[in-house]
Amino acid sequence: MDKLRVAVLGATGMVGQRFVKLLSDHPRFELEVLAASSRSAGKKYAEVVHWCIEGEIPERAAGMRVVEARLEDVKHEGDVDLVFSALPSEVAREVEAEFAREGIPVISDTSAYRMEPDVPILIGEVNPDHLGLVREQRKRGWRSFIVTSPNCTSNAMIIALKPLMDEYGIRSVIVSTMQALSGAGWTGVPSMAITDNIIPYIRNEEEKVEREALKILGRLENSRITPADFKISASCHRVNVLEGHLEAIFVELDKPAEPEDVAETMRRFKGRPQELRLPTAPERPIIVRDEPDRPQPRLDRYAGNGMSVVVGRIRRDPVLRNGVKFLVLGHNTIRGAAGNAVLNAELAEAEGYL
Amino acid sequence: MDKLRVAVLGATGMVGQRFVKLLSDHPRFELEVLAASSRSAGKKYAEVVHWCIEGEIPERAAGMRVVEARLEDVKHEGDVDLVFSALPSEVAREVEAEFAREGIPVISDTSAYRMEPDVPILIGEVNPDHLGLVREQRKRGWRSFIVTSPNCTSNAMIIALKPLMDEYGIRSVIVSTMQALSGAGWTGVPSMAITDNIIPYIRNEEEKVEREALKILGRLENSRITPADFKISASCHRVNVLEGHLEAIFVELDKPAEPEDVAETMRRFKGRPQELRLPTAPERPIIVRDEPDRPQPRLDRYAGNGMSVVVGRIRRDPVLRNGVKFLVLGHNTIRGAAGNAVLNAELAEAEGYL
Amino acid sequence: MDKLRVAVLGATGMVGQRFVKLLSDHPRFELEVLAASSRSAGKKYAEVVHWCIEGEIPERAAGMRVVEARLEDVKHEGDVDLVFSALPSEVAREVEAEFAREGIPVISDTSAYRMEPDVPILIGEVNPDHLGLVREQRKRGWRSFIVTSPNCTSNAMIIALKPLMDEYGIRSVIVSTMQALSGAGWTGVPSMAITDNIIPYIRNEEEKVEREALKILGRLENSRITPADFKISASCHRVNVLEGHLEAIFVELDKPAEPEDVAETMRRFKGRPQELRLPTAPERPIIVRDEPDRPQPRLDRYAGNGMSVVVGRIRRDPVLRNGVKFLVLGHNTIRGAAGNAVLNAELAEAEGYL
Amino acid sequence: MDKLRVAVLGATGMVGQRFVKLLSDHPRFELEVLAASSRSAGKKYAEVVHWCIEGEIPERAAGMRVVEARLEDVKHEGDVDLVFSALPSEVAREVEAEFAREGIPVISDTSAYRMEPDVPILIGEVNPDHLGLVREQRKRGWRSFIVTSPNCTSNAMIIALKPLMDEYGIRSVIVSTMQALSGAGWTGVPSMAITDNIIPYIRNEEEKVEREALKILGRLENSRITPADFKISASCHRVNVLEGHLEAIFVELDKPAEPEDVAETMRRFKGRPQELRLPTAPERPIIVRDEPDRPQPRLDRYAGNGMSVVVGRIRRDPVLRNGVKFLVLGHNTIRGAAGNAVLNAELAEAEGYL
Repeated sequence: MDKLRVAVLGATGMVGQRFVKLLSDHPRFELEVLAASSRSAGKKYAEVVHWCIEGEIPERAAGMRVVEARLEDVKHEGDVDLVFSALPSEVAREVEAEFAREGIPVISDTSAYRMEPDVPILIGEVNPDHLGLVREQRKRGWRSFIVTSPNCTSNAMIIALKPLMDEYGIRSVIVSTMQALSGAGWTGVPSMAITDNIIPYIRNEEEKVEREALKILGRLENSRITPADFKISASCHRVNVLEGHLEAIFVELDKPAEPEDVAETMRRFKGRPQELRLPTAPERPIIVRDEPDRPQPRLDRYAGNGMSVVVGRIRRDPVLRNGVKFLVLGHNTIRGAAGNAVLNAELAEAEGYL
Repeated sequence: MDKLRVAVLGATGMVGQRFVKLLSDHPRFELEVLAASSRSAGKKYAEVVHWCIEGEIPERAAGMRVVEARLEDVKHEGDVDLVFSALPSEVAREVEAEFAREGIPVISDTSAYRMEPDVPILIGEVNPDHLGLVREQRKRGWRSFIVTSPNCTSNAMIIALKPLMDEYGIRSVIVSTMQALSGAGWTGVPSMAITDNIIPYIRNEEEKVEREALKILGRLENSRITPADFKISASCHRVNVLEGHLEAIFVELDKPAEPEDVAETMRRFKGRPQELRLPTAPERPIIVRDEPDRPQPRLDRYAGNGMSVVVGRIRRDPVLRNGVKFLVLGHNTIRGAAGNAVLNAELAEAEGYL
Repeated sequence: MDKLRVAVLGATGMVGQRFVKLLSDHPRFELEVLAASSRSAGKKYAEVVHWCIEGEIPERAAGMRVVEARLEDVKHEGDVDLVFSALPSEVAREVEAEFAREGIPVISDTSAYRMEPDVPILIGEVNPDHLGLVREQRKRGWRSFIVTSPNCTSNAMIIALKPLMDEYGIRSVIVSTMQALSGAGWTGVPSMAITDNIIPYIRNEEEKVEREALKILGRLENSRITPADFKISASCHRVNVLEGHLEAIFVELDKPAEPEDVAETMRRFKGRPQELRLPTAPERPIIVRDEPDRPQPRLDRYAGNGMSVVVGRIRRDPVLRNGVKFLVLGHNTIRGAAGNAVLNAELAEAEGYL
Repeated sequence: MDKLRVAVLGATGMVGQRFVKLLSDHPRFELEVLAASSRSAGKKYAEVVHWCIEGEIPERAAGMRVVEARLEDVKHEGDVDLVFSALPSEVAREVEAEFAREGIPVISDTSAYRMEPDVPILIGEVNPDHLGLVREQRKRGWRSFIVTSPNCTSNAMIIALKPLMDEYGIRSVIVSTMQALSGAGWTGVPSMAITDNIIPYIRNEEEKVEREALKILGRLENSRITPADFKISASCHRVNVLEGHLEAIFVELDKPAEPEDVAETMRRFKGRPQELRLPTAPERPIIVRDEPDRPQPRLDRYAGNGMSVVVGRIRRDPVLRNGVKFLVLGHNTIRGAAGNAVLNAELAEAEGYL
């Protein structure tokens, strides 16, 4: 079976680089086109990218000519069966629609379409059935569709909450984050700003966390999603860590649960990607550690090749009714971004959407 | 009026150094004796201290001979009217009692006696009346008394909660901390452990935070303290910051309150130390900042010479009933430790206890 | 005697902020005008500056209206007797000349005119006589003059070398630097670039270090400077430190010298600013520390209010003839920039040039 | 051919952990015994080790019972053909001799025997012939021998210097280092000491660097080593980097050399381990990078699985005769410690010494 030919839009940014790395040796996808801004167009990828993730630039990608991230230019460069988008939010809305309209599926990691009622925010292990929603996008006059991934902070939290919702029911969630620098991009946080410091604010982040989770954990019925029926409160903070978002989570459950049962419920959790043995699916979506001082970003962020989230310190919460509290860590540019999107594409293919 | 002669017990540690600095040029106290472990005894302070706070060792202290932190040795070195204690917890219990028994008041920053029913945990602005509790200690056969200070993490939170409790009533509190390295002492956190990392665990810290606040915010009646009647849930984490604990706080109030009213209530807050114009009292116990990205540890920790706590990002909490959430920052070794204790001593003197 | 009225050009950058701080409570200079780019013009200083140095924005400056950094706009805002320039290098050349031409002396911290034969690079303690060179600038048709300050890295090294050159003669110098983040400006070094890392390259820095020192240590004769007659080799590196450049220096002397004699020579060193008791002059231009592990940037950068350089670990060098090696630390935005320029202005005034 | 059975002495420290990792899946060595201090003896490795290198503890090692690092205990635990030693220096001298005396070869990474005239300090690519020196150790009455590895700082420098010495001759070397935290062990550098700071001193380090290189680059004749005939001057500094020592090197050559020729000479360099295709030998001992801002510790330390050194910024030095300067980076606990020792063992086996 031939590989699908893919393009990466926004290939030079941090998430774009993760896409290039994950797709460079992928069993189902063949990297055909790298697209970025007009400034980079016409040059070799290795010349324009400020490569900043572990290891060297994959050799083949290094020599590829970058084109501008527009339908016309991408098509001119090569036939592609789908595109991965890590475009800056200012341009994502228009460009992604262009591809979907012309029949090229868009697996997006941008926020542009996340909250549209006919666009799923997809986490393979959590809401694989939401893929069906893409059919609604034909009403826009599009020949193909857009699938989005959640915000990196929402992602780790939602994966940890999913088995709890299924087993015990959730009434409310409070989350306080300690987020990594890479979430803001290579130049997002000046070293003068964060050395010996914390920045207790990330623009629009709390709003996203409080909203996206309810859509993702919601129910798809009659071609629309009914959001999950609980409330989330987030406080988001940037700390001096390169990669890996760590989140302190306090959950009010419907039914009482012992910490050890919560742990067991999380450990047992598997989803559709594990059933289908998708190439990027981690063996265990949630790894629960027993040590009192884990998860730690530097030590745990590459668990499951950065696709597992790591949970620790599950304990009772004395304030919330049937309350439990715990920590969850997710690799923000792998599970929380490019890795999740690649998994979405694998799922879409396996389920016959591509 | 003559200055009171004071000793610092545990003078070489990080909190001990803060005591030495704060007391080196104090209008009411004269630094007479520096005491530490037997290893340091007999040597000059400058020779045994690993001075690690801003500025040089105060000149007079630098030349003082260190004695062992025992009643006998301290008395032999000089007559003292009171002692400040920053002893390691293993020895604090016995040594502090020795002084109190023999009639020398102990202003302690250790945890040894904090939860004893006849010992106040004192924050000048919050529960000055609890000082009266010390009279109960005579029943132990002590000629003088011990006054303690709260844990550094509790301290900042409690100061921020006090005006809210008075104005709106508090039902419950959830707090997620990002604590500084100095809280663990000079060698407490290896650089290999915390660089590009977070340690999501601080031994016994959550228990202290969940318990101390209720005692401090409790009512003194009939010589005993009735703890405040609400619940606290804490999640405590160590981040890569030198000084200044930052805490994300979620509060359920009895009565609804607009964020701007909460801000105003905090801004107006003054306590007994401000009324008495005590030397170490900050003009404003709580500084509320309006910028969206403050407080930040490096920029705000020295507000009010490290004695003010800084609050920011006051906003509604969508989960808790009458909920508000905000951030509070306190200098953990000044307001959260030595500075609070010095203020306690000033209060005790002004109120006639010394 | 009335204070001189001054403007700061480039007042919003990191060096500009240092100027504002140093000049806000200065006995001889009165801050009259704050000038920056056209983007900031018309707004209050507090609104446009991203204040990032210790303490709050000086109150008076906070409320001042910023004007564009052009002669016309500055003059329109107020009469000024001299200007301090921390302009970006692209615009410094033209704007500084404009002021000098029209009779307003320019005390510059930019590199624009440093290597011009008729412009002195001035360090008060090292080459105060070079001030005389400014008379040559009249030949340009200028009614006043420009005085420059050295690059921040050169500065600390040169102050340390000056007494050695006078006492023993210098044959050659090798210097390897560990430079602070602030040298690149607030956004100069992304946190992603420097966390757990070193960047072993600073554009144009080695060239400046290898050239400027020879001019500053040169002799002024017949209205021209004969550069010092030795060679310098530099290797410049950026490390994860907020402020304070640390430099490992290896010197080949003309005459042999014991390390303790070198230390004594440095300790004794005083210059014209100390003789004249200029307000910004540190009591000791060079502080020599005896501890084996000093100077350290965080502990020593504020020595002499950031105007002293701190030397340590003076020892024989086994490779160079009559070789000594040592470390020197200088506060790069105070002694290495704004503080040096303010001292230059004080010197110019005291010597009758203003 | 059966694998050789090996023990690791000092298996719980940072270098010990590297040994365990490198030997856990080694084609020629089988990890039989893990030995450490008496405190750890009798417990499982996973219980006593504070694992702090990338990835998890190798599964088999995790379950192994630790014994005390003494001949008797190690022999009792299992038959071993050789031991790797990463013992603390206080005990290394006696324990290593014990093994060598009783006929078990010791591949050491400690400094205990480095400067003994009959003990080689071995770098496979640099002085493989020095292995022959071990025969001299029989005169001590030992049935087997000790081979040592250089200090981590010397190691990277020497590998970079070796091809220059062979091609151009070396007259002198000046080196200024920026060394990683792991060199001091897990608890060696407190975070309070190094955050926003540099420590410009590492005990005994400069002496080692100035001495070891000359022995390693010396000639073995008539059973003794004549040290290389040039001088080295070192200035050693600790910076805030987890792993990877970066060194600025200034070399005086015998013959003039263009930077591009130096680069080519380094690139071509191969040694005996490459000829023999030893399992741990990197394909290229020296990787030369052309970018102006490389090598960087975080980006380059794992080049060649941490066994290559990375050189960059080769340029003329204006001070030294026939001078060149460049930067070199080596992974201090792999190439600079455990990896070098494992390569030494592979070489010893291939050359018939085991």
